Amino acid sequence: MESTSVFFIEQNLLPFQFVIGEAAGYKESCEVIRSMRLRGAGAIGALAGFAMAQACLEASVADYQSFIQHARHEIEQTRPTARNLFYATEKVFSAGKKSPAEAVREAQHLAANDALASLKIGEYGNALIREGCRILTHCNAGWLAFVDWGTALSPVFLAHDQGKKVFVFVDETRPRNQGARLTAWELQNAGILHKIIADNAAAYFIAQGKIDLVITGADRIAANGDTANKIGTLEKAIIAKEYGIPFYIAAPLSTFDHDCPTGKDIPIEERDPEEILFMEGPDHSGRIHRILTSSPGSGALNPAFDVTPSKYISGFITEKGILIPGKESIQNLIKQQL
Amino acid sequence: MESTSVFFIEQNLLPFQFVIGEAAGYKESCEVIRSMRLRGAGAIGALAGFAMAQACLEASVADYQSFIQHARHEIEQTRPTARNLFYATEKVFSAGKKSPAEAVREAQHLAANDALASLKIGEYGNALIREGCRILTHCNAGWLAFVDWGTALSPVFLAHDQGKKVFVFVDETRPRNQGARLTAWELQNAGILHKIIADNAAAYFIAQGKIDLVITGADRIAANGDTANKIGTLEKAIIAKEYGIPFYIAAPLSTFDHDCPTGKDIPIEERDPEEILFMEGPDHSGRIHRILTSSPGSGALNPAFDVTPSKYISGFITEKGILIPGKESIQNLIKQQL
Repeated sequence: MESTSVFFIEQNLLPFQFVIGEAAGYKESCEVIRSMRLRGAGAIGALAGFAMAQACLEASVADYQSFIQHARHEIEQTRPTARNLFYATEKVFSAGKKSPAEAVREAQHLAANDALASLKIGEYGNALIREGCRILTHCNAGWLAFVDWGTALSPVFLAHDQGKKVFVFVDETRPRNQGARLTAWELQNAGILHKIIADNAAAYFIAQGKIDLVITGADRIAANGDTANKIGTLEKAIIAKEYGIPFYIAAPLSTFDHDCPTGKDIPIEERDPEEILFMEGPDHSGRIHRILTSSPGSGALNPAFDVTPSKYISGFITEKGILIPGKESIQNLIKQQL
Repeated sequence: MESTSVFFIEQNLLPFQFVIGEAAGYKESCEVIRSMRLRGAGAIGALAGFAMAQACLEASVADYQSFIQHARHEIEQTRPTARNLFYATEKVFSAGKKSPAEAVREAQHLAANDALASLKIGEYGNALIREGCRILTHCNAGWLAFVDWGTALSPVFLAHDQGKKVFVFVDETRPRNQGARLTAWELQNAGILHKIIADNAAAYFIAQGKIDLVITGADRIAANGDTANKIGTLEKAIIAKEYGIPFYIAAPLSTFDHDCPTGKDIPIEERDPEEILFMEGPDHSGRIHRILTSSPGSGALNPAFDVTPSKYISGFITEKGILIPGKESIQNLIKQQL
């Protein structure tokens, strides 16, 4: 954060262009989150915190409290499913009620904590990864999705750094291809062996005994352990259970929502059907085109997330250790550890 | 079939262009099947039959038998999973051993039978569709995939013709988008209500109680009922079972392979990874572009089919009625009915 600007990696342009974007005020930050120029649970949380701090800096003394209250609502409406967004906005709002300086400090503190939590998640998750492990992941929960390290990929990065041989099956993750575009790019940069697969192919490889472990991130975890994550996560979780493959969710405690009793209470964001009907990418000369990939005139339904009931989840890899649903109330466990 | 040419709808250009293609000889017909310019179980079978007849017409008298034997192998290697291809090739080959005229007659007979079987499948399947039924289908098993009517969509077309209100959730069907491009196009032309969904979203809608029935086609059915179909079918079948939704396979008896004891014996075609890494379609001005939709340099794995064990299948909608796996040996049932 420099003056009131927040800088971020333009994720919609990756992996074809690496561009640092700038959001000069809180309204611009909202637009960056809404349009998914920046996405990923932790990254959204961090930017939402900075957006709230920006609003505190922008507010005039005369109507400071009502301005920041209004801004808070606006920030919270950008991505309704993302728990980290609400968590960060609330924290920075509370701090900001005292002064803009407090808000900025809190936003910076949350971002630093997110990176730290991701690293701890990597350490705990690494214990699940044995030599030669073949891992399936869905969407992108690597360092792009967080301030650093990521959640689902953090254990994979650490295992690789320690010299373990790992192989990652990367779900393409339609409709926005965060797997094929972002996770594959992160793994390639890290030198980790991987292949992209159609989302449709996960069950095929699991049925063939070619996948040992599934790890994904989370966008919101209800008090009973039901977990909202990128659309398709539910399919992978059911299939993993059917074939007896462990299915883990990697997420910081800030993704847990104590005020949300079950998955039924998690609001699911519906996004523009055009995300399914069209695709964007470079041709052989690098020129970006937006092409129609479906029958013209047919509409689409585009829920961005689904909810995986906790019965399909082997455990939650958090910065405080691995929590096992069913073993003890997750709610209690987390309350003890907070 | 006119002289030795076979005419077909260029499916790779649909739904953006409607072009009638021509395969002037059996080698061209092989290439049409291999490149999926024509695809779909019954359509492949019909064209394979005509390709075999073309080979009989092209063979010189001197080495007639060895030429058509060689051609048969070549045709069979184009799409290794597709049962109808082997079925038709074998039938026309047997007839062709007598004379090219017999081969042509047999190929025409098979194509006509395919259309008739599809219509009967529609009639039997229609009994499963009640007023207001919401149906999920995967890939394309409509009239494009067969000589006419199709399999999975044939009951839907008939139900609609009879004035039943139906709604179809159309799986996009990555990597080649046959759902988004072909099934959606067929349904739209027929005036049937539908929406395209990401393959990832099927479980979301099933979990929400928004889908009453799943029907897909099949590329090969083993003697024990295990069924090879477009990659992703296994995921949908497991999820349907998990939520107690009926899951039907619609296929003519020519898709059943008595020489294939179980799903383990069905060869699965691996296709070019570029089908996953790139996509083709028109921009707003109608110009076709091929764009990269994934991280450059990351590879992909592209199995074209998966095998759904018969325990997930509620029934097979055939031209002879609905066969229920487990109730009686499917093998016996079919043998009685053939």
